[in-house]
Order: sequence, then C-alpha cells, then structure tokens
Amino acid sequence: MYEYSRPVYYYETDKMGVVHHSNYARWLEEARTFYFDDMDLAYIVTESYGVMCPLTDLSLKFKRFAKYGDIFTAKIKMTMYNGVRFRMEYTVVNQDGQVLLEAESGHAFVGADHKPVRLQRAIPHRHELMKKLVEEEI
Amino acid sequence: MYEYSRPVYYYETDKMGVVHHSNYARWLEEARTFYFDDMDLAYIVTESYGVMCPLTDLSLKFKRFAKYGDIFTAKIKMTMYNGVRFRMEYTVVNQDGQVLLEAESGHAFVGADHKPVRLQRAIPHRHELMKKLVEEEI
Amino acid sequence: MYEYSRPVYYYETDKMGVVHHSNYARWLEEARTFYFDDMDLAYIVTESYGVMCPLTDLSLKFKRFAKYGDIFTAKIKMTMYNGVRFRMEYTVVNQDGQVLLEAESGHAFVGADHKPVRLQRAIPHRHELMKKLVEEEI
Amino acid sequence: MYEYSRPVYYYETDKMGVVHHSNYARWLEEARTFYFDDMDLAYIVTESYGVMCPLTDLSLKFKRFAKYGDIFTAKIKMTMYNGVRFRMEYTVVNQDGQVLLEAESGHAFVGADHKPVRLQRAIPHRHELMKKLVEEEI
Repeated sequence: MYEYSRPVYYYETDKMGVVHHSNYARWLEEARTFYFDDMDLAYIVTESYGVMCPLTDLSLKFKRFAKYGDIFTAKIKMTMYNGVRFRMEYTVVNQDGQVLLEAESGHAFVGADHKPVRLQRAIPHRHELMKKLVEEEI
Repeated sequence: MYEYSRPVYYYETDKMGVVHHSNYARWLEEARTFYFDDMDLAYIVTESYGVMCPLTDLSLKFKRFAKYGDIFTAKIKMTMYNGVRFRMEYTVVNQDGQVLLEAESGHAFVGADHKPVRLQRAIPHRHELMKKLVEEEI
Repeated sequence: MYEYSRPVYYYETDKMGVVHHSNYARWLEEARTFYFDDMDLAYIVTESYGVMCPLTDLSLKFKRFAKYGDIFTAKIKMTMYNGVRFRMEYTVVNQDGQVLLEAESGHAFVGADHKPVRLQRAIPHRHELMKKLVEEEI
Repeated sequence: MYEYSRPVYYYETDKMGVVHHSNYARWLEEARTFYFDDMDLAYIVTESYGVMCPLTDLSLKFKRFAKYGDIFTAKIKMTMYNGVRFRMEYTVVNQDGQVLLEAESGHAFVGADHKPVRLQRAIPHRHELMKKLVEEEI
C-alpha cells in the first residue's frame, strides 16, 4: 500500500484547535497526486491528453482529531477500475499510528466536454497500467 | 426545508474551470451555521458553553460541476438527534435548479476534552429545541 | 465608496481562535467581484472576452483580529487606472466599526497568453466605464 | 539563506489555470514554520509558553504565475528583530529559478490577551537565538 506523509500546516487548523475537516479532502488529493506520479500516471500528463478525472463521490469517517504538530501518513490504494471509473481507499494515521480518518473516493475519466471517456481509447498505454494497479492491489 | 444561497467565489475554482470539490464541505458548514443561527441554536453560543460539535462523518455525491458565475442554494434538514449525536442531509442546486451535490453529515456534541457530552445536561433548553427540529423535519 | 459585508465563516479561523490572515486576500477578491458586478463590469464577462486581470501586488496591514461571530464590511475603491493597469484600496471594519485591515492591490489586464492587454482595444466600452470609476472615486 | 520547497498542489490552482494568489500567504507560513523548526524555535513550543506571533503586515509582489506541475522554493531570512517584533523577507522561485514572488512580512509576539510581549521576559533563551538569526542574516 502506497504511503504519503507530511506535517499539518498551521493554516489547516480552526478555532477548535484541530485540523478543519474540509482539509482532509485536500490531503487525499495530495496523496493521489503523488501515488499516480510514482505509478507513471502523473495527472499533469493525463490533462495534457485532454482527459480529467473529477470525483464522483467522497466518503469521510473522522476517527480522531489531527493537531498542529502532527505528521500524518495517508495510506492509499486503488480498489476498482473498469475503464471509465475507478475507486480509491484511504486510511490516514498520525505519527503514533492512531487512525485519524478512513475514506473512499470515486472518480471518472472525462473529456473537455465533461463527458465520460474510455481511458483505453484516450490514452491506451495507461489503461494497462491502471488494470495492473487494481490487480496487484497497489 | 431550510435554504442557504450565495454566489460561487472565484478562489473556489480550480484549473479544471469548476469549483474544487474540497469547497463543498465548506459550503455545507456555512449552511449549517446559518440554519442553527436561525433556529436559535447559534454555534457561537454553543461554544460559549464549552460544547463543540465536530463532524463524525461526511458523505458527498457530486452530481454536476459548479461554475464561477453560479449561485448555489444548499437545502438542509436535520434527520436524526439522540441527545449526543445528530445527522444532517443536504441537496445543493444551482440557479437553474440542477442538482450539484447530495450530502449527509454526522455530528457529536463534545466538551473541551473532546469527549461526548449529553446536550440535555450541558445546555438543557437546547435539547428541547433540537428534538423539535427533527420531529418537525426542519 | 462601495461596501461589501458578510459574516466570518468558521473554517476561516485558525487555532489562535481568530481569522487566519490568508483569508483576507479572499475577502478582498469577493469585495472586488461584487464591486465590478455592480459597476456593470462583471469579471465573468471580462473573461468571456479572453481578458483576465491577475494581481500584480498586494499589501495588507493587519490592525485587529477578526473573530468568529464578526460581520466584516470591506470598503473598496479604485484609485488608479491607466488603460492596462488599475489599483484598488480597501478598509475592512467589523460590526463595531473597528478597523481590521487596510489593504491595497494592483492589477493588470492580460490575454490568454498572460501578456498585457490594452482594455480600450480588447473591450472598448469598458475602458470608458473604468475611467469614470477613478474620476468619480467610486 | 534558508530554503523550503514543495510541489504545487492541484487544489491551489484556480480557473485561470495558475496558483491562486491567496495561497502564497500559506506558502510563506509553511516556509516560516520549517525555518523556525530548524532554528530550534519551533512555533508549537512558542505557543506552549502562551506566546503567539501573528502577522502585523504582509506585502506580496507577484512576478510570474506558478503552475500545477511546478515545484516552488521559498528562500527566507529574518531581517529585523527588536525583542517584540521581527520581519522576514522571501523570494519564491520555480524549478527553473524564475522568480514567482517577492514578499515581506512583519510579526509581533503577543500573549493570550493579544497584547505585545517581550520575548526576553516570556522565553528568555529564545531571545538570544532570535538576535543571532538577524546578526548572522540567516
């Protein structure tokens, strides 16, 4: 399972003294970006083909507050890919291994017109790479 | 059902040309704040009693892109309240009535030590108000 | 002088218990957007002509903390316009009239290639409107 | 001069296709945090003494757009310290060494009551460290 870590930024906290929940969606996006970069599927290249992959859904379960001073690690893997859509699962822990967040996101490949696109047609060699990620549960 | 509207801000868009998904959690929080203000349950007063109500979970289904120039309306209601926890449901539409987002959030009342708090004990008169909101499906 | 008001959002606070300074740049952008909308110079129309007006500089003087529960008012006016660039000045106060922020921003009209554009050439009738805003100190 | 680098995050871009200017204040805060951490002046420790150091002013000169795919480096140094206030200067460049931003910020040490605090009285050993940073232009 792929891992991405960084410290909590001060501007991510709110007056409750902990990380504001809206930032978790951003942490997961950072984790996805680095994951795809390292899997030879850099998102900036995806976009250069005129293909984008917006979220279709996002589910967050908040388990424990993240605090300023914490270093989080997002563990991420792909759980489904069907040529047009894919799904990711995440567990975010702090430096003590305590679970902060469990999450799941759905994504669809779309073109500039925001309509679904078959990856195999749009960027063929990436289709094979995506299939491998799910098969190998990376 | 309670409604909250405002225009999309430019800084909420991303390079895909639409509102970045992480902002929806913020729109829902704005809607909740105005909802509770108008129900005589202002969150700033809740906090003055040493009680906070962080999210326990958040589920977002993205139905359509929101764009700069759009004016969104978040329709919000309370669907459950059991004295310690409550749940809210949301439908966010644009100025043409098209659904942008369907969402659900869970919340728990906690004290300064981040432990669960029974609202009836902490702020008794608010317990009655909360019960009424669910009963009347406001 | 044009005025724009709204309540502070919870997610704009940080663990210091006050509004995080990075949000002020966003408040000023909101104020500018409503200002130009009301002056018949809606930014969304500017962009439809292929013209954008990014910031060239921004200067912020923080006078007093803004808190959750506050309603801010941004007072804004145009102080310079030379056909390619313009400057805005802002004073942001709270509901008690106490000054929170004094600010100034510079902007340039640019095309899709990010190169400077003369507004008179790109959108002629807007050039006259802009000149009037500065002359009349609105 | 101290340096802090990281890639641009997707959620930092706006519909102009570049990094939204409000994020620069956040980049500078990240750079300051790592700077002080590495100088044995971790901000989380400062706060544990009941001392905070909010910004008094911030000045940003935008030189060039930052894009998704860029890796920025913020070069940062302390330019003034007088026991209660200090000033920082920044130059932010991209991976090609092109200047994206020049900036300057002012800060004051304050207590829980938001009133100015002499660092020498509040956290004596840190006063010596701060003086050294300015003298040695780190």
